[in-house]
Amino acid sequence: MAEASRTSEARRDAVFARWVIFSPARSRRPTDLKSHGPANPSPGPDDGAPKPSCPFCLGRESECAPEIFRVPAPDESPSWRIRVIENLFPALRREAAPPAPEDEEPVGAGECAVRGFGFHDVVIETPHHEVRLWDLEAEGVRDVLLAYARRVQQLAEHPAVKYVQVFKNQGASAGASMAHSHSQMLGTPFVPPSVTSRLNCMKEVFERSGKCSLCAVVSKDILVSETHNFSAFVPFAASYPFEIWIVPRQHSSYFHETDQDKVLDLAGLLKSMLQKLLPQLSVIGGFEIGSGCHINPVFPE
Amino acid sequence: MAEASRTSEARRDAVFARWVIFSPARSRRPTDLKSHGPANPSPGPDDGAPKPSCPFCLGRESECAPEIFRVPAPDESPSWRIRVIENLFPALRREAAPPAPEDEEPVGAGECAVRGFGFHDVVIETPHHEVRLWDLEAEGVRDVLLAYARRVQQLAEHPAVKYVQVFKNQGASAGASMAHSHSQMLGTPFVPPSVTSRLNCMKEVFERSGKCSLCAVVSKDILVSETHNFSAFVPFAASYPFEIWIVPRQHSSYFHETDQDKVLDLAGLLKSMLQKLLPQLSVIGGFEIGSGCHINPVFPE
Repeated sequence: MAEASRTSEARRDAVFARWVIFSPARSRRPTDLKSHGPANPSPGPDDGAPKPSCPFCLGRESECAPEIFRVPAPDESPSWRIRVIENLFPALRREAAPPAPEDEEPVGAGECAVRGFGFHDVVIETPHHEVRLWDLEAEGVRDVLLAYARRVQQLAEHPAVKYVQVFKNQGASAGASMAHSHSQMLGTPFVPPSVTSRLNCMKEVFERSGKCSLCAVVSKDILVSETHNFSAFVPFAASYPFEIWIVPRQHSSYFHETDQDKVLDLAGLLKSMLQKLLPQLSVIGGFEIGSGCHINPVFPE
Repeated sequence: MAEASRTSEARRDAVFARWVIFSPARSRRPTDLKSHGPANPSPGPDDGAPKPSCPFCLGRESECAPEIFRVPAPDESPSWRIRVIENLFPALRREAAPPAPEDEEPVGAGECAVRGFGFHDVVIETPHHEVRLWDLEAEGVRDVLLAYARRVQQLAEHPAVKYVQVFKNQGASAGASMAHSHSQMLGTPFVPPSVTSRLNCMKEVFERSGKCSLCAVVSKDILVSETHNFSAFVPFAASYPFEIWIVPRQHSSYFHETDQDKVLDLAGLLKSMLQKLLPQLSVIGGFEIGSGCHINPVFPE
C-alpha cells in the first residue's frame, strides 16, 4: 500500500463534487459488535459492572485516547458521568496540518484531495457498560447534549473547521463498532455535500418567499410529539423508514447556542423519540444533529 | 389510511429539495428472499427447472403483469430468453395522468408533490430460476443490455419522462425481493437529485476547463480492467466499498445510443466485473446504469 493511501484524506471528485473521507486506519479499529442484524440486539440495562474488554467503562480510562473534558460525578468522587475523548482510530487527524488557503477553497468543482486534517472525538455517554442513552433520566440526556454543545463551541473556534457533525450510530449495521453507549463528533475542514444542498435549497426558498422552509414545514407534516420549545415530526419527503426530525419551534440557527433551559426540553423529547424507535434501533439506527434542521451548524466565515 | 397516502406520489421537500417516491403498494409485493445477510447467499446454477412459486420462471408468464416485449429463443419455439414486463407492484404508475406543465417544473425549490406517474418495468434476464446474470455467456449479457437500451429508447419518446434509471439489486439486503435474476427500469417525470448534482458538477468543470470530467478522470484512477471501448476503474472518491465505474473510452452521452458492436464489449467487461465482485454480491450488491458515467441519461427537452 502506498504511503499516501495510509494517511487520512478527504477527496472530492470532478463528477459528483461530493466529499468522501478516506481513512485506512479506521479498518484496524477494534469492535465488540461482530454480527450484523437482529442476531445482535442491543443489550438491556445491567448492574453497570465494567466489562473486561471495554475501554469505555469506568476504570479503563488509561486504555483510551486522551480526554478532552469530562462531566464529573455529582459526589465529587474521581468518578465521571460523561467523558469527551479523542478517537483512538480517527477518520481525520487533529495533528495534521490544516489545509492551506489554496486547498481550502479548491478552484471550481474539479477533483481534489485535502490532507486528513480534522477532529474526530468520542462522547462516552455513561460510565456503565450496558446503560443506553435513552435509559438515562432526561437530566442525564440533557448533560450529554450540553457536552455536545460545549465541544461544538470549542471546535467552532478553530479557524480551519468549517462544520461539526454530531452523530450516534446504534447497532453494528449502522456502523457502530463498540456496544458501550457513545456518540461521535467530526470537525471537518469542508462542509459536507448534503449540508451544502440543504443550505442552497433553504436559501432559494428564503429568497423567493421570505420564509424559513423549516419554520414553514412543521405545521404541515405529521407531528409525532411536541413540547413548549421543540416539535418532532415525520418530514414531508422522508427518505428512510421511521425518519423523524426534531426542530426548535422558534427560529434558531445554531445547536450549540440553544438556551440551556431549553436543552432539558429537547433532551426529554429526544429520549421519548428514541424509546418509541427502540424496536428499530436494536437493529440499525442512530441520530445526527444539524443536517436536517434549521439549527444551522455551518460556521460563518 | 387516507386515500392520498395509498396512491404513489413523488415528493420534494423545501429543505433538501430531493425527490422521494412514496409507494405504499410496494410494501405488499411478494418476496422469496426473506432473510437479510450472509444467511441468504445467492444460489448456484441448477438445471433451470421452474420453481413452483416463481412467476418469473418459464411457463408462469400468465402470473406476471403484461409483457412489453420479449427476446425469443433462437429455435423459434414459443420459449424466450429475456422478457421485459410491467412491474406488478410498481413504484410509479403508467396509467396515472402525467404531471401537468405547472407541476412539471414546480416553482423554485419549495415543497411539492406530483402524482405518481411513471413507468416501472422488470427485465427478466433468463427463463431459468437459478441462472444468474454473470452465468450467461457474454452474448447473453449483451442481449440483456440491448433489451435495456431498446426499452430506454421507448421510454425516452414519452414527453413526460425526464429520466430512465436502470438498476439491478442483488440480495435481500440490497432491496431485491425475488431470487430469479432480474433488473428494473424506472422512467420518472423528474431528474433524480444525484443526477442533477452530477450534471451540475460536470457542467461547471466543462465551463471552466473545456473538459469532460469523466474523460479526464479515467487515466488517473485505479484501473481494474480495460477493453477496446470501455474502462472499469475504482473512482477517485469512491463512496462505498468495491465501487466500480464502467465508462466508455470515447466520449458518449447516452447509454441507449451505444453502437451495437460495442455492446458485446461492454457485456464482457460487466460480466467479468460482476464475477470479481461475487463474494460481495452474494450479500448485497447490484449495479446501476447512468448515474455515474458520461453516459448521460437525461433526455433533452
